[in-house]
Parts: sequence; structure tokens; C-alpha cells
Amino acid sequence: MREVAVIGVGLHKWGELWDMSIRDILVTAAVAALKDAGVDHVDSMFLGCMSSGLFSGQEHLASVMADYLDLTPAPATRVESACASGGLAVRLGWMEVASGLSDIVLVGGVEKMTDVSGTEATFALSTAADTEYEGYQGVTFPGLYAMMARAHMNRYGTTLEQLSQVSVKNHANGALNPYAQYPFPVTLETVMNSTMVAEPLRLLHCSPITDGAAALVLCPAELARKSFREHPLVVITGSGHATDTIALHSRADLTTIKAAEVAAKRAYEMAGIGPDDIDFAEVHDCFTIAEIMTTEALGFFAPGQGGPAAENGETSREGSKPINTSGGLKAKGHPVGATGVAQIIELVLQLRGEAGKRQLKEPRRGLAQNMGGSGGSSLVHILEKR
Amino acid sequence: MREVAVIGVGLHKWGELWDMSIRDILVTAAVAALKDAGVDHVDSMFLGCMSSGLFSGQEHLASVMADYLDLTPAPATRVESACASGGLAVRLGWMEVASGLSDIVLVGGVEKMTDVSGTEATFALSTAADTEYEGYQGVTFPGLYAMMARAHMNRYGTTLEQLSQVSVKNHANGALNPYAQYPFPVTLETVMNSTMVAEPLRLLHCSPITDGAAALVLCPAELARKSFREHPLVVITGSGHATDTIALHSRADLTTIKAAEVAAKRAYEMAGIGPDDIDFAEVHDCFTIAEIMTTEALGFFAPGQGGPAAENGETSREGSKPINTSGGLKAKGHPVGATGVAQIIELVLQLRGEAGKRQLKEPRRGLAQNMGGSGGSSLVHILEKR
Repeated sequence: MREVAVIGVGLHKWGELWDMSIRDILVTAAVAALKDAGVDHVDSMFLGCMSSGLFSGQEHLASVMADYLDLTPAPATRVESACASGGLAVRLGWMEVASGLSDIVLVGGVEKMTDVSGTEATFALSTAADTEYEGYQGVTFPGLYAMMARAHMNRYGTTLEQLSQVSVKNHANGALNPYAQYPFPVTLETVMNSTMVAEPLRLLHCSPITDGAAALVLCPAELARKSFREHPLVVITGSGHATDTIALHSRADLTTIKAAEVAAKRAYEMAGIGPDDIDFAEVHDCFTIAEIMTTEALGFFAPGQGGPAAENGETSREGSKPINTSGGLKAKGHPVGATGVAQIIELVLQLRGEAGKRQLKEPRRGLAQNMGGSGGSSLVHILEKR
Repeated sequence: MREVAVIGVGLHKWGELWDMSIRDILVTAAVAALKDAGVDHVDSMFLGCMSSGLFSGQEHLASVMADYLDLTPAPATRVESACASGGLAVRLGWMEVASGLSDIVLVGGVEKMTDVSGTEATFALSTAADTEYEGYQGVTFPGLYAMMARAHMNRYGTTLEQLSQVSVKNHANGALNPYAQYPFPVTLETVMNSTMVAEPLRLLHCSPITDGAAALVLCPAELARKSFREHPLVVITGSGHATDTIALHSRADLTTIKAAEVAAKRAYEMAGIGPDDIDFAEVHDCFTIAEIMTTEALGFFAPGQGGPAAENGETSREGSKPINTSGGLKAKGHPVGATGVAQIIELVLQLRGEAGKRQLKEPRRGLAQNMGGSGGSSLVHILEKR
């Protein structure tokens, strides 16, 4: 397997984009990535999207991508793993380059979520859970994560203040990200008094509905060293993918996310490092409890210590383990198919030293953890500056 | 890249399966494939499905697959390229084994299409076309293929009898396939007098709506030689994937399917052979005109000669180039995400000599061509008996 570099990244301002279609935002991000990389062709494409069928009435989306980028007849593959679809597209793009099958691969992620009603969007998102045993009974995602939050609070004493502090931190970071949907700070008081959604989770513990796309260009590290020297070299050194039961009620333990644990173990083994070697991470904070649980599952903090770590500032930009410097899903937005790709972009920008006002001090290694459903799938990638 | 063998195949009887859910049929086919291979674990899974969101209200389907097969935490990836989703899953499974990343890979395809109304099914299928420029204008797939048929008839003098003869042949083959949805013969007269759908295409020129799944087990050929010797060795020697414009009106030529041409060229190059070396093929006869056009695009017949070849019996089981010995999409059924996987199964059964009453005489090389939309994507695989 060849070492794989990320040579281009492309984003646009996320939000409620009434004047753009799903193909518009996808093309915008992809063209930005191709331009950033300085390439004029690709050998193959991968696209992460959860449900362009239910959200946009358009399947066959990878062919739409190839067509509207004028990149036909290059192969184009859409992958789906609910909200981990973007991370999955990254993994397959990595696999195609690592295997030697292709040299230049474009990886995109997209979701256009605001062209349907709120009820329709809630239904579309609920299809990431077990439709027959969860969805049909009326459970939606805030409810599923609320149950996980209650279990975590019960076992470890995690507090509402700790859940809320994650939101405060991520909004503070997002305020420094020009592409974020909600680029403004919030106070602890505002979070704790926001509208109740699913007890104990309030509105500002939940990530939003977002229109957005993100894209990367990958190539062999050897080729990047020779031909793409405009940016510092950033390589993917670990990739892990794991599944778990689709339904929450089938899990042995509600207080951890096993798919994230297993995916992380695989990524660490491939990279030959451990959690202590990671300088910073983007994790899947679809709800603030998820950030606490994933920072534990990734081995950054012991079980039950994710909440105190958030409260003590350890996960802030100035802390020992900065988490979600981009603003996370909470403040940057969560266009579900794009999220996993955008997480990698934040790692690349930080490792290149191009993260602007939210730049960390010379990080060398970053990790991205993307999650599908209530943890039915997870992708973990480790990126390093060479 | 390592050579990849198909060591297990699994199917079930396709049709309108009111008493089974999408997970039931998927698990049935997958368990059959695992049993046929004689394996008790897998390293990774791929699943082709076009629109479990619109048809079944269930996304995140690869995690459903891993969960209900009790194969978590193994990685599971769902891929989508409209009606070519199954072929795409085969390609990615092949890539994962060929690259050395995994040894034992399960590849599934599924679609449960009869749990929604006919109108909803027609809408779901229309999302394989360009929603904004075709779907919103009321064009559905019979209409798109009818336009291609008219263009082909106009340029080459292809006749309605020739279109109909494809249906007669495929039903004759399907009558010998115990898993086919419509296992009965039809006469030329019946086809030509069937209900008009989109002029010139009548009901018996069109493939049906089907509930069905299919599954394969792949491993390195070297491992198959050592450890899986129950069946004759069948290997994948060529894989090609190509895209074209999503909308039919953007094509330079309506009388050929360029994505199939390009995908075939790539597969032939990888296998080091040409169309004359192929003993038999499964092609994507979603409408009978598609079989005529794809047999030309694959290089089996010169442009315009696909119709006469069907009429002259060249594509029958006794002809020089047997096409769709399984019954094709027409008679076997067309559960869109499963079709591309089931095509490979027919090749494997014929190459093993396990095709029962429809068995060809000692074929050595078979080709499968799977298509998305009106040709916006295509996958071609070549399998050989070692």
C-alpha cells in the first residue's frame, strides 16, 4: 500500500442556502479543492452523501458530480454510511490511491437538508437508526442521544454543565471559522437555558440542519513530493472503519461508542501510534454528549473523564488536547454527508498552518472521528505533517 | 494488485415478497453466499443499494447488514450508482481484496421495491435520472429508453420485432432459472401485443419492479486455491467503471451507451482480452433496447447489428454469443441494487458448470455489464474459469 497525501481542500460557507441546489454546492466545494491542489484532471471520484434521495429527490449523485464537474467518463462512486458517509468516502479514496489503482482522486461530501420541511428532514435523519425497531416507534436522534446522555450521567456523574461547556467551546472555535454556519460565541447560561429538545438535551446541545459540501484531492505521497509542493505535505497515516448494532437497544453498553473505539484501534495500529501522540482532533459532536463519549472512546480521556476534561478546558484550543477547533458539528454545521470530509479539511488546514485565527501552535498529528447514526458505524483517520 | 476469486454465491427466489422485509432478503442471500463459500467470518463488506431511503425508509443499510448478519464490528460500506449499485459493490469488494487490505470480503446487493405504491416506485426510480432537468419535467425511465429506441430504430433500422425477440429469448432463459421472478416463456405475438408503456416500448419490453437480494464472497485467488477447493476456481480478471452525463439530452449520441463502451474498454485492457474472447455475457436489459445497445457498446456486434443478432438467434443459449442466460432483468427481475451482483452470480454458476437446465457448454470467460440510469454510469466485469 502506498502512502497517501491530501493535496487539495475545498469548502464554502455553510448554512441555509436557499439559492443553491445540491449540485451547486457540491461543484463549488469540488472546484475549490481542485484549484487548491492545482490539478486539472482526476482518475476517480468518491462522494459521501447520506440521503440525497429523501432530501433532494436525486440519487445517482456521483454521476451528477462527474457530469457537472465535466469529469466524465472518470469513475465516480457514491458511498453512504448515514452521518459517517463523508469519512467513508475519505477511506475509499485513500484505499484507491493506496492500492495503486489511481493516482489523483477527488473525494467529496455533500448534503442539502433545507429543501424539505422540518418533519421530512427529521424523518430522513431517522433512517440512520433502525427504522423498524426505532423509527417506527417514534424515536428520533435527539431522543437516542438523550438516552445515552442519561446513561453516561448516571454511571459517571457527567453534568449538564459539562455537556453545555462543549457547546460553549465549539461556538468559541466556530466564531473564528469563516465557513461556519453559526460563527458566534454562546455563553454557558444561554446554552443551559435554551429550548428543551429531548431531556436532558437542549437546543444548544444539538447540531443543526445544514446545507453544505466539502472536497479533498488525494494522491500518492511520492507524487505529492515531486509535483505538488505549494503546500506543506500532509499524509494519511491511519484509517479505521467499524460497525456496531444499528439499534441502540441492542448495545451491551450505552455509555461508550464501540464502533469509534474499534475504528480508532485500527487507525492507531496502522499509524503505529496511540492516543497520546495525537495533538488535536475533530470528533463527531452531533450532540454534545457525543463529543464527551467519543473523546473517551478514542482513548484521549478515561471513561467518565470526557465531561471533566471539557469543563476544565483541556479540549479548548489552549488545552492539552484541542477538540473541534473548526467549531465542530455544533457551530460549523452538520450537512451529514459532508461532515466527515470537512473534518479532514480542518486537520489539513491546522497541519499546514493555514487555520487563521483558530490556528494551533505547530501541530504535527491530528485525528478525525466521524459517526453514523447512534454509533452504528464510525470512521477514524489520522493525518500527519511530514 | 492480487488476483481475486469468487468463492461463494447466494440468491433467493425473487418476486413480490410481501412477507419479507429488506433486511430479511438481504440476510437470506448473504447467509447463502457465506454457506456456499464455507466461511464463518468476513474482514469487510460492501453493499449495493440504490434507494433504501425512498423504497424502505432505511438508510445506513450496510450497518443493518453487519448487525443482522452478526458480523459487527467488521467494516461495512454501502455504495450507490442507481441501477449499477450492485456492480459497483462488486468492484469495490474486488478492489479491497486486490489491494491486500482484506482477505475475505462479502459483497451484497439488495432492493425492496414493492413496499411503496407504484407512483412512489416510479418517483424513486426517476431519481436515477437528472431530477432537475428530466424528473421535474415528467420524464420517467420508459420514456428515456423509448427515445433511445426511436433514435436507434431511426439510424439503424432496428425493428420492433428485434426489440421483442430479446424479450422472448430472455423469458425462454428465465423459464429455466428457479430464482427468476417470471420463470415462463412468452411468444413474439404476446410481446408485440402487450400494453403500450412508452411508444415504441410495450410492457414486455420493460423489466419489472422486484424485491430481491444477491451476495458473493470474494478472496485472493491464492487463498482460494489453498483453502476453498469445493468449487471450480472462478476469478475476476477485469473490472471497468465509467460515467457519462446524468441527463440523456446532454449526450452526443443517443444510439450508443458510452459509459458501457468505456467501462468495457477498461475491463478488456485489465483482462488482456477483447470482445471476441468472451464466451457469454449478462447485460443490463432494463428495457430490451438496452440489451441491443449494450451488446453493441461491448463490441460483441457492430453498431446497428445488435437487433439483427437478437433476431437471428446469435444471442440465444445455442448462439455464438449467449446473452442473459439467467433470464436477464426482463425475466429474472430487476431489484435495482441487487442486479449487478446477481449478474456475477450467473457468470459464476455457468463457469462452475452449476447452471442447471440453462447450462452452456463449458464456457471459459463471461462478462457482466451493469448500468445506472439511462447510461450515466456503467460497470463491466470479466470472470474466467481457471
